[in-house]
Amino acid sequence: MGDIPTEMDLVYRVLDEQLVDVDGRRLLDAYNNVPVVGHSHPRVTEAVVRQTRTLNTHARYVYEPLVELAERLLASMPPEAGLDSVMLVNSGSEANDIAWRIAAGVTGRDGAIVTPFAYHGVTAAIADLSPEEWPEGFEVSRVERIPVDAGEEAVAAAAAGLAEAGHDLAATFIDAGLTSDGVYPLTRERLAGIVQATHDAGGLFVADEVQVGYGRSGEHLWTFAHLGATPDFVTLGKPMGNGYPVAAVLTRREIVEDFPFAGSVFSTFGGNPVAAQAGLAVLDVIRDERLIPHVKCVGERLLRRIGELQTRHPEIVTVRGLGLLIGVQLDDSARAKKVVDAMRDRGVLIGRTGPGNDVLKIRPPLVFDEEHADVLVEALEASLISD
Amino acid sequence: MGDIPTEMDLVYRVLDEQLVDVDGRRLLDAYNNVPVVGHSHPRVTEAVVRQTRTLNTHARYVYEPLVELAERLLASMPPEAGLDSVMLVNSGSEANDIAWRIAAGVTGRDGAIVTPFAYHGVTAAIADLSPEEWPEGFEVSRVERIPVDAGEEAVAAAAAGLAEAGHDLAATFIDAGLTSDGVYPLTRERLAGIVQATHDAGGLFVADEVQVGYGRSGEHLWTFAHLGATPDFVTLGKPMGNGYPVAAVLTRREIVEDFPFAGSVFSTFGGNPVAAQAGLAVLDVIRDERLIPHVKCVGERLLRRIGELQTRHPEIVTVRGLGLLIGVQLDDSARAKKVVDAMRDRGVLIGRTGPGNDVLKIRPPLVFDEEHADVLVEALEASLISD
Repeated sequence: MGDIPTEMDLVYRVLDEQLVDVDGRRLLDAYNNVPVVGHSHPRVTEAVVRQTRTLNTHARYVYEPLVELAERLLASMPPEAGLDSVMLVNSGSEANDIAWRIAAGVTGRDGAIVTPFAYHGVTAAIADLSPEEWPEGFEVSRVERIPVDAGEEAVAAAAAGLAEAGHDLAATFIDAGLTSDGVYPLTRERLAGIVQATHDAGGLFVADEVQVGYGRSGEHLWTFAHLGATPDFVTLGKPMGNGYPVAAVLTRREIVEDFPFAGSVFSTFGGNPVAAQAGLAVLDVIRDERLIPHVKCVGERLLRRIGELQTRHPEIVTVRGLGLLIGVQLDDSARAKKVVDAMRDRGVLIGRTGPGNDVLKIRPPLVFDEEHADVLVEALEASLISD
Repeated sequence: MGDIPTEMDLVYRVLDEQLVDVDGRRLLDAYNNVPVVGHSHPRVTEAVVRQTRTLNTHARYVYEPLVELAERLLASMPPEAGLDSVMLVNSGSEANDIAWRIAAGVTGRDGAIVTPFAYHGVTAAIADLSPEEWPEGFEVSRVERIPVDAGEEAVAAAAAGLAEAGHDLAATFIDAGLTSDGVYPLTRERLAGIVQATHDAGGLFVADEVQVGYGRSGEHLWTFAHLGATPDFVTLGKPMGNGYPVAAVLTRREIVEDFPFAGSVFSTFGGNPVAAQAGLAVLDVIRDERLIPHVKCVGERLLRRIGELQTRHPEIVTVRGLGLLIGVQLDDSARAKKVVDAMRDRGVLIGRTGPGNDVLKIRPPLVFDEEHADVLVEALEASLISD
């Protein structure tokens, strides 16, 4: 996180609906996926305000908006996945932790497969499944990593390796955009192969939509659904409440019923009424503002224009994209850092990702417009030239 | 949770600042510790509203209220504990999970000591430390349970048992009110013994203030501090944002620096600016409304009046209390269920707790007044008579 602005050089404010820094300079946010429908979107904000003023208690009492949110989420999922159960929690980490707890409990196994530089969360169980955060030299015998271009065969081999080591496969966790690996969006065929090999090995498949969900692909609310996969669990996180802490695990009733702790998986804040209203408002905004086709259109323009830059700038190695998740592979991590800093100095916030920290990560709120895409591309070109 | 009202018979609303059920009948909440300063307290509500309308993003950018909240929390801790580091997270479960991760990482051990029917959270690692939620017959070899009247000797014996089983003690987790065990508040001497024996065995001590923190004891913001303990970790949860999902882990820098993952313990929602403003407003209200002495006064009256009931109702076995956390041990779990239901029918919400589910749990928001205490006692007496 070395290239993240700190209080020293950047304090966020919102002025006349603009994000500004300490000097009042406008900032263009192409980094944050949490405010998925835009910072302080009035419709989500007022839903939070109204419910906070009325009642905010925990979810031990059934409250209508919670049921409505659960039903809306289930209805948005592909019917062939058979997802019929929702648990609301507080964060993507909790969602993945609970998916893991249930998968391990139901299979009676402890092996996991993830991508090489995956990030799924901060809890004790999920940190083991998050090699992005592993210290140098850290290894976990119950976790196998598959390459970024893995398909059915690689997963079958990894599952066999786990079984040999005495850790039969409980679950495969996949972010279909491979965001923290450096943005390597999966194809339909490869994702199908990963799910198939997971099931063949007796494991369960977790589609982690914490980063790639909520329309980011520009094709469907859920990236796994766009790719035609049928997961056993779907986990949702950050963008679900546009910043209000709420997250979810979706699965099938038959799986939950096999879980010995089923009666007790309970999260005090999961699904408080304010969280539910925030979640409903986000779904409304994505639908009413036609954000998914908008993402497709703006994402394609941004990808094309960065592709054009590549022809003039050999330091751009490849450009990979999935809607409004774009990875720009540079030839060097020091250069990537300089570009991120130079763009910030020009008022455009982006990040870095990947095991080499040499991939520019462009992942704006979904209300990012064509004019914003053009501002970003100009700032990127200027930052490359000044490099 | 069999005695918890559901949508069928109770829908919460707030009408003219009163909590009412579906029939518009006023409800007296003596059950919820989350809205610690009262449901929809205007000062906390408006802090959330103002910040939600301004900016809500994650904590990768340092934002002044986050720093202020961390400093206020640290300043509220007893100096002799040497706590100097705060991590903001989203829930008590996450706070306890991260305390566990760090304790296990720093000690290189995996043994834990908890009370017999403890509850510390829902994540995979912490579910093992939460026997309240264990299914029938579940055991974990790395977890030893100490009795509710345990002191130094019991902890030393438990630590020795763990070591024999190959699971040296990493951490002891204690809620000083033993809330889920049936409300058995610890004494100063016993808590000191538990901490001492934990340290003697090379383990770290976690004061779980998720349920007993924020002034509930009527003596100090933190129950462990009232009892003079010096923990290695303090975990805070539910009441911290009066319902806005925010929680925290406090510890010492030297412990965090020994943790191999120190650089990467990061929680996207932990400490978003809205959470920080909610946390600051709660601390302000507790101070400005003098809630801690208020809790002492009302808690003592409630305990005394329930004690008087006991003289006329032999089905009350014992009454145990710590400020506004009161456990009324009945002679039978079916009776406890009937009393909870009968009180709800009279508009007073309480719960049940303890391994036998035979302890009435009275744990209202801290703004509970003397007149509320009297309403509760009358409803309790009527519910016992009608029983």
